[in-house]
Amino acid sequence: MAPQLEPFFKQVDDLSGSFIDRLRKAVAIPSISAQDENRKDVFRMAQFLASELEALGAEVEQRPLGKQPGKEHLDLPPVVIARYGNDKSKRTILVYGHYDVQPALKEDGWATEPFQLTVDSQGRMYGRGSTDDKGPVLGWLNVIEAHKKAGVEFPVNLLCCFEGMEEYGSEGLEEFIQAESKRFFKDTDAVCISDNYWLGTEKPCLTYGLRGCNYYSLSISGPAQDLHSGVFGGSAHEPMTDLVNILSRLVDSQGNILIPGIMDLVAPLTEEENSLYGGISYTMENLHESLGSETSIHATKERTLMARWRYPSLSIHGVEGAYSAPGAKTVIPAKVIGKFSIRTVPNMESEDVNRLVFDYIKSEFAKLNSKNTLDVWLQHDGKWWVASPKHWNFTAASKAVKQVFGVEPDMTREGGSIPVTLSFEQATGKNVLLLPMGSSTDAAHSVNEKLDKRNYIEGIKLLGAYLHYVAEEPMSL
Amino acid sequence: MAPQLEPFFKQVDDLSGSFIDRLRKAVAIPSISAQDENRKDVFRMAQFLASELEALGAEVEQRPLGKQPGKEHLDLPPVVIARYGNDKSKRTILVYGHYDVQPALKEDGWATEPFQLTVDSQGRMYGRGSTDDKGPVLGWLNVIEAHKKAGVEFPVNLLCCFEGMEEYGSEGLEEFIQAESKRFFKDTDAVCISDNYWLGTEKPCLTYGLRGCNYYSLSISGPAQDLHSGVFGGSAHEPMTDLVNILSRLVDSQGNILIPGIMDLVAPLTEEENSLYGGISYTMENLHESLGSETSIHATKERTLMARWRYPSLSIHGVEGAYSAPGAKTVIPAKVIGKFSIRTVPNMESEDVNRLVFDYIKSEFAKLNSKNTLDVWLQHDGKWWVASPKHWNFTAASKAVKQVFGVEPDMTREGGSIPVTLSFEQATGKNVLLLPMGSSTDAAHSVNEKLDKRNYIEGIKLLGAYLHYVAEEPMSL
Repeated sequence: MAPQLEPFFKQVDDLSGSFIDRLRKAVAIPSISAQDENRKDVFRMAQFLASELEALGAEVEQRPLGKQPGKEHLDLPPVVIARYGNDKSKRTILVYGHYDVQPALKEDGWATEPFQLTVDSQGRMYGRGSTDDKGPVLGWLNVIEAHKKAGVEFPVNLLCCFEGMEEYGSEGLEEFIQAESKRFFKDTDAVCISDNYWLGTEKPCLTYGLRGCNYYSLSISGPAQDLHSGVFGGSAHEPMTDLVNILSRLVDSQGNILIPGIMDLVAPLTEEENSLYGGISYTMENLHESLGSETSIHATKERTLMARWRYPSLSIHGVEGAYSAPGAKTVIPAKVIGKFSIRTVPNMESEDVNRLVFDYIKSEFAKLNSKNTLDVWLQHDGKWWVASPKHWNFTAASKAVKQVFGVEPDMTREGGSIPVTLSFEQATGKNVLLLPMGSSTDAAHSVNEKLDKRNYIEGIKLLGAYLHYVAEEPMSL
Repeated sequence: MAPQLEPFFKQVDDLSGSFIDRLRKAVAIPSISAQDENRKDVFRMAQFLASELEALGAEVEQRPLGKQPGKEHLDLPPVVIARYGNDKSKRTILVYGHYDVQPALKEDGWATEPFQLTVDSQGRMYGRGSTDDKGPVLGWLNVIEAHKKAGVEFPVNLLCCFEGMEEYGSEGLEEFIQAESKRFFKDTDAVCISDNYWLGTEKPCLTYGLRGCNYYSLSISGPAQDLHSGVFGGSAHEPMTDLVNILSRLVDSQGNILIPGIMDLVAPLTEEENSLYGGISYTMENLHESLGSETSIHATKERTLMARWRYPSLSIHGVEGAYSAPGAKTVIPAKVIGKFSIRTVPNMESEDVNRLVFDYIKSEFAKLNSKNTLDVWLQHDGKWWVASPKHWNFTAASKAVKQVFGVEPDMTREGGSIPVTLSFEQATGKNVLLLPMGSSTDAAHSVNEKLDKRNYIEGIKLLGAYLHYVAEEPMSL
């Protein structure tokens, strides 16, 4: 039986002006976590959130995380945690978001003041943090307010976990989540994170998978100091020559990883999975629009989505130690470090990938007969994540999408990583759902970031409807 | 008949203390051409030189070169030109040096104050500019003074051309040399430049060749902006992948240039030339000491010297546009520019080299089947230079070395470029000799730059003796 959502939906529509005002107030606080001088604003934003949540009747705490590692003069912003409802007969849903934002300057090319929410005639609400991630965070507050004002009983116990360092590596959060797994988070029945985006602009999606990332450094050194290329060119082994040679053996121009054994670790494509891609609302034009070019590798959307979601990729990011400025410098660099990463997918275990990478690079380097010295190491890794999209958490969200938007959501995965996803899954042992509010054109991290009014207001309805369906779903895997 | 040099030599020994004082005064003026705040010191150094030359009886001019291009608030330092002697019956020798120096800070690792000449117990005279190039420049002044005080007739007419921007690209000098080719420089019979170094530490050398340099940029671009490697890795052609692939096809780890046709442009090794390398005072240990490692390509000194002097080499200097900082950034750069240069030798013509480079890179790129866009262009070129070491200019210098040091000099070439060499050769149409004063361990451009007292004082005798032998040599090619 579908929940009776009309009073809640009507209340959201009635309050839409005040919800946009709430977003306007939040955007006006430049809570840029990467800039020391804005740290006070990040704290101000935490206080704003805490006050709003308290006014709505939640139990709120601002939990300190100590000093910022490496910048001991700065306090890390607090994690704002809140509990709304404590009824043992209801499910408890943990929601996560972040209240810090990326840097933004009008001079970077913004058409409007980045910290002044500006709504155009088509309902596009421009402002830093509008879609990433203040809109979704406030979405949960708006859901509570609409329920209260409509006199509709809140269907679940809600736990909020809003952090203030997401755009700067989520410093301190992992430890916090682990420490609270048996305390604040202990009643969690399922997790919902709203911090990604629709695949396109028209159709909502539910995201159940992310790729992992193994990041490597490959260093080659020879002489004790940089050399004059006139004096020594031709008589000494050059580290940069060896480096480009090894880097060129990792991946080809069609994106094929050339390291033997890597592809053998990838879970085979089943008939069932293969049949899913055709139905996803995505086109090659969408891809070309995102790229700003037609330099796509694959001819079809299906193969493109597989490349993004379910196959590994290897990207070469750059070289440390070589000349990188504009102009012309003729030095032979003494030591160069190539950086590359492999996006990992089921069933690639990090240790297996490392072993294959190290063995291959060492054996290829040996073939060069260079007297230079090679070193290769893992800088960091983060595991891929795949949840069961058949869990009641997803079923509830899917019904909510159908109710609010009139369509079945696309079940998607993502090519990038959201490390907190895995942290919550591991700390709670529960299903995690990624439920995006914004669309693919929102330009998070870029100039002219925006959130469409439709995505915000209908998104609030979606979050609320999701909680109602969650309350009704039978147990599942 | 050998000139009677004893009175001159004795006078140099007698004046050695005052010659070292003259160097001390010059080193004390921080004439750093690359730093705006030191421009006044560069002018001060020009004035010091001009005054000293005038006091010795030379006709001196400080010739302005106008404003510094791109830094219009700065005047370029003057070229100090001087004529000493105007006797039509004598040969006229043009000498070049520079009075500006590289930057230096005690904090960089200097054991002594860089702008305070400090002589240690082994006669090593430490100070910025001691060997590069104030010692050699003052050498000519000291030669004049010793002749005057010894009452020995000066054997030639001397033209001095001392510039103040050598360490910053010799701004304005090329135009000045061209403009004065038929005026101040018109009587020149031969040119002598003292601005390079002995191959080792014991044996003087005369340098008759330099490699040229063609510097290239190779750009590959694809998407309109940098991409998230999680989202787009595997579905878009990555410019960095294509770039390392192309760069890896230019040169192998043994220094072999892989561009077809390049080696066909190189002048064949004659029996006569081949026989020269064995006698050069140089060892593999010298090379390993300079490298600070044993990462040499060739097994013998002969092959090493050939690689440095008479064969081309290709060095990859770096990548512009990719991630170059320490740490881990996962972006796919949208546009990357590889920088590489080819050291050129006889008979490589720049246009032929360019054509081979461009054709090869374009055809290799086509093989990649990438949708990215390639561009490759020459940033700048400078021609190789080889003089005739049998010219009387070299014969005179060779006899002077034998007279002062008791050994035949090594006849050497260099792997690097000294562009002014070619400028003087072209402007005067006369033979140019590179006659170094300092040794290979002088650390020009580095911390703890020094000039050995022996190299300075015996070097003054060498410069003077050279002028006497020049006056006696019969005409030759």
